[in-house]
Amino acid sequence: MPRNLKLILAYDGCDFAGWQVQPDRATIQGTLAAAVEKVTGESVLPQGSGRTDAGVHALAQVASLKIASPIPAANLGVALNDTLPASIRVLSVEEVAEDFHARKSARAKTYRYRIYRGKICPPFLARYVYHHPYPLNEAAMIGAAAIVTGEHDFTSFAAVDPEAGKEDSPPNNVRTIYSSEWKREMEELVYTVRGNGFLHHMVRNLVGTFLMVGKGNLNAEGLQRILEARDRSAAAATAPASGLFLVNVEY
Amino acid sequence: MPRNLKLILAYDGCDFAGWQVQPDRATIQGTLAAAVEKVTGESVLPQGSGRTDAGVHALAQVASLKIASPIPAANLGVALNDTLPASIRVLSVEEVAEDFHARKSARAKTYRYRIYRGKICPPFLARYVYHHPYPLNEAAMIGAAAIVTGEHDFTSFAAVDPEAGKEDSPPNNVRTIYSSEWKREMEELVYTVRGNGFLHHMVRNLVGTFLMVGKGNLNAEGLQRILEARDRSAAAATAPASGLFLVNVEY
Repeated sequence: MPRNLKLILAYDGCDFAGWQVQPDRATIQGTLAAAVEKVTGESVLPQGSGRTDAGVHALAQVASLKIASPIPAANLGVALNDTLPASIRVLSVEEVAEDFHARKSARAKTYRYRIYRGKICPPFLARYVYHHPYPLNEAAMIGAAAIVTGEHDFTSFAAVDPEAGKEDSPPNNVRTIYSSEWKREMEELVYTVRGNGFLHHMVRNLVGTFLMVGKGNLNAEGLQRILEARDRSAAAATAPASGLFLVNVEY
Repeated sequence: MPRNLKLILAYDGCDFAGWQVQPDRATIQGTLAAAVEKVTGESVLPQGSGRTDAGVHALAQVASLKIASPIPAANLGVALNDTLPASIRVLSVEEVAEDFHARKSARAKTYRYRIYRGKICPPFLARYVYHHPYPLNEAAMIGAAAIVTGEHDFTSFAAVDPEAGKEDSPPNNVRTIYSSEWKREMEELVYTVRGNGFLHHMVRNLVGTFLMVGKGNLNAEGLQRILEARDRSAAAATAPASGLFLVNVEY
């Protein structure tokens, strides 16, 4: 009977082609699987709470993992960190019930998107923000943020998912957003969104559409219409990956 | 009569083989020269206040540059930032007197070295600190910091300089350190040193030697003896480049 483990991970997404394992490309899932195999000798694919795109970061991604090795959970964490590159860190390893699954058991997720508003973006932040020094009506963005809260069909904000229809992908594009907030924090304009699930590119598409509001190309009623249109072509361009962080997953 | 310009630069040193131009390698000086040529059409080599090693960062490196182009200083800064990679930023461009030279005119420099003391180093800091989670007698390091202040022959802390004897390299290894301080800042132990000049690898060799004090392998008297020995083999190993920042240059 293999043990079931829950791992919490932080990663700098810049050097990876996203979470999901791909042939001949460095991914978080693939790099983690290789480290697990090196430490335990077992070839298993860790399941993430969801895929993050190329360049997207995580403060606390969750993965679940079934292994037979008797290595104590804490020791596994230390050994994985000794094996993984510094851009991926295992923050904790915990024994969980057999039926826990990082994706299927997830009840809510929180994402954050950082826009650097200063004229010159410090080189030490460039990997972790979207640099947008041009005029934005930030008050309009802050005011429009809550329009997307509640249960909606988010098709207008969904990219065509390359994984749709495979496995146990969700049957529709209806999701519930519990909170959606833009906030100015020093030189950054930060979007924080918490919901029961997110479609492919959904946060970056929401950010791109809020940026249209900030640029004065869309008002609150227009945003409402885009949401109701259930048509991807209605919304704006996808915001760059560098500013996006998976902040928290709740079970 | 060419104009003389003073540039203040910040850079993330991770992706560069140091400041100094080298054939077939990405360097700060070479990348900046290429950007200047692209913007002004003039092929000139910017002079830095000093070389930084591969992987060493700068919050405010200073470079001087003689160009004929009449482009206003502020516009040159904007155009260079549009051309340079995000890992190098021009913070300011200023017209200076003809005899200003970034290296020869420098009167003092400040460096900072960051040691991350927490058990797990966040992936977003890994490029900008030296991760040392092992026991250190930090109080002993803090107490020994001032031993190196004043005018000393720092041969014990100097690497053999590949550029020594060339050009107008300084005639000896005597330098004056105005302040030398270790300080705990949250999860980091930070060394800040200000002096009238620094030898090749000097800050990283000082940090390596202070780390011997922290590990209990050297006491204050031993550090004093190493300083007086004027012999490179007396001091400890060079600390990693990732933690080092050139913070300020005074004229």
